[in-house]
Amino acid sequence: MRIVITGGAGFLGNRLARALLQRGTLTDRNGTIQPIDQLVLFDVAPAEGLTRDPRLEVRTGDITDPGQVRDLLGAGIDGVFHLAAIVSANAEEDFDLGMAVNLDGTRHLLEACRALPKPPRLVFASSCAVYGGDLPDVLTDQTILTPQTSYGAQKAAGELLVSDYARKGFIDGRSLRLPTIVVRPGKPNRAASTFASSILREPLAGHAAICPVGRDAELYILSPRRVIEALEHAYELPAVRLGPVRALTLPGITVSVGEMLDALARVAGEQVATRVHFEADPAIQRIVAGWPTRFRADRAQTLGFQADRDIDEIIRAHIEDELAGHVH
Amino acid sequence: MRIVITGGAGFLGNRLARALLQRGTLTDRNGTIQPIDQLVLFDVAPAEGLTRDPRLEVRTGDITDPGQVRDLLGAGIDGVFHLAAIVSANAEEDFDLGMAVNLDGTRHLLEACRALPKPPRLVFASSCAVYGGDLPDVLTDQTILTPQTSYGAQKAAGELLVSDYARKGFIDGRSLRLPTIVVRPGKPNRAASTFASSILREPLAGHAAICPVGRDAELYILSPRRVIEALEHAYELPAVRLGPVRALTLPGITVSVGEMLDALARVAGEQVATRVHFEADPAIQRIVAGWPTRFRADRAQTLGFQADRDIDEIIRAHIEDELAGHVH
Repeated sequence: MRIVITGGAGFLGNRLARALLQRGTLTDRNGTIQPIDQLVLFDVAPAEGLTRDPRLEVRTGDITDPGQVRDLLGAGIDGVFHLAAIVSANAEEDFDLGMAVNLDGTRHLLEACRALPKPPRLVFASSCAVYGGDLPDVLTDQTILTPQTSYGAQKAAGELLVSDYARKGFIDGRSLRLPTIVVRPGKPNRAASTFASSILREPLAGHAAICPVGRDAELYILSPRRVIEALEHAYELPAVRLGPVRALTLPGITVSVGEMLDALARVAGEQVATRVHFEADPAIQRIVAGWPTRFRADRAQTLGFQADRDIDEIIRAHIEDELAGHVH
Repeated sequence: MRIVITGGAGFLGNRLARALLQRGTLTDRNGTIQPIDQLVLFDVAPAEGLTRDPRLEVRTGDITDPGQVRDLLGAGIDGVFHLAAIVSANAEEDFDLGMAVNLDGTRHLLEACRALPKPPRLVFASSCAVYGGDLPDVLTDQTILTPQTSYGAQKAAGELLVSDYARKGFIDGRSLRLPTIVVRPGKPNRAASTFASSILREPLAGHAAICPVGRDAELYILSPRRVIEALEHAYELPAVRLGPVRALTLPGITVSVGEMLDALARVAGEQVATRVHFEADPAIQRIVAGWPTRFRADRAQTLGFQADRDIDEIIRAHIEDELAGHVH
């Protein structure tokens, strides 16, 4: 089978590619386990850091160009993981770019899928940023999406299109609302949520980190390991199990900054945890306070998606996966 | 002030135009009552049936063409009522046309508004068709939109865009989810809901009518008078009263077909009600059974939107407005 990952040069795309190459197969829509013969990583920049593999094709291009997207899918593909996106802060700053990539790009991809002789499976990475405004204390699968960022609005519109294209039989689509991913490897970025990874990743690597919010601030998080598992699981879910509603919120865990730092001390030692310093940033505090943190992701749980057990498990997995088992 | 109505040749557009010309003013964003100096009715077909009025401009064009939409708004407008749409059955049959008019057309309009020196007010006619799938018994302002038609998906995506453009300050937007409009004047159309008006309109005009669903079938309805009032009221609502969530479901009344026919007999006489014959249509019964009929439209009620008192009032208003007071 031939699989495409958009946003293939990003952190999740890269990690998903490695996982798919390693497992080597995916269950197709007939319930048959099929070998992955070709895996195409599509992004604006070439995907890097992957070992050579005859199945791997790295391809650069522009998802806002319908012709390039049609070429990408070519004569046929079996499935797409659609991860390409302009992230939250960037989409807020550059409205047109966010619309072009997050909404039009998704639409070009859906149209290219629709033009294929056989409707492909498509897994769309949505986000809990689709929620915002006046929210109930605990969000459920029935809670309305009233995003308060352009990124969230574009993701919510993408979900609607994925569901409608699926209902029409143009694709076999499914959308996953991702919690905040912790621990993200790499460098801090300009996202308001970047501290959630920094306050664990940096101390574990021997560096100091600044925490702009208080110990009481809560987050709804999922580890890189679990999000990759979720993407694979979403791909393999039979369509009948999803029914008419094609989007779901992934199960995550709700943790406070205080609990994260206590776990850091437990797992890596008191001295590592002291590398985090609090420096209040009212702007970030305000943004974080608006994020929903308590979900009942019943539907995803029934469908077999799994959250991390606890924050300790997330920290240990990061040490194994990114630090070769060694805390600095 | 200069006001544009898209879909100005349609039943609601026409009726709204007459109402606006008659009242002659609208309250602007500063809370000041302003005369309507120019009212532009934009549609694919020329708006007809309106008395000559120096304030009225009838304009034909294609909302799927961004250049024409920019020209329509010209150097500046104060407000738009965006009613233009491909209706449910048509959008389901011709997916591309529905996307082009309902989604792209809305986007062209929003972009043209954004390009103006002063962000205009915009009232977007959404629909209760944004709801579908597995729904709670009673829908509230917090219920998720999981449309099961392309029309519903396109309207839901339009709501998201209107809200985000409003949040960014590009427009001062508000979206109203319209219940089924009863009694629609004119001829039956191909919409699954057309019987809901036919079973009242046709007997009152002296004609027979076929009812494809049983007496127990329920509908969530609003009269033409009330929907016009709602559009005007939505335009005049101060933005601060709406807050960050710019879409709301209009209050309607829930009535069964049996209650509608009983009211017809009460208001117009037993003999008129006998002009309705039941002929079961399983396809329409199935569609109608999937429509949500019970809403708690608390937010709209708090904001001063009003449902009809009862079905008797709706029938009497139709006799006054469309039959010059005479039942045939």
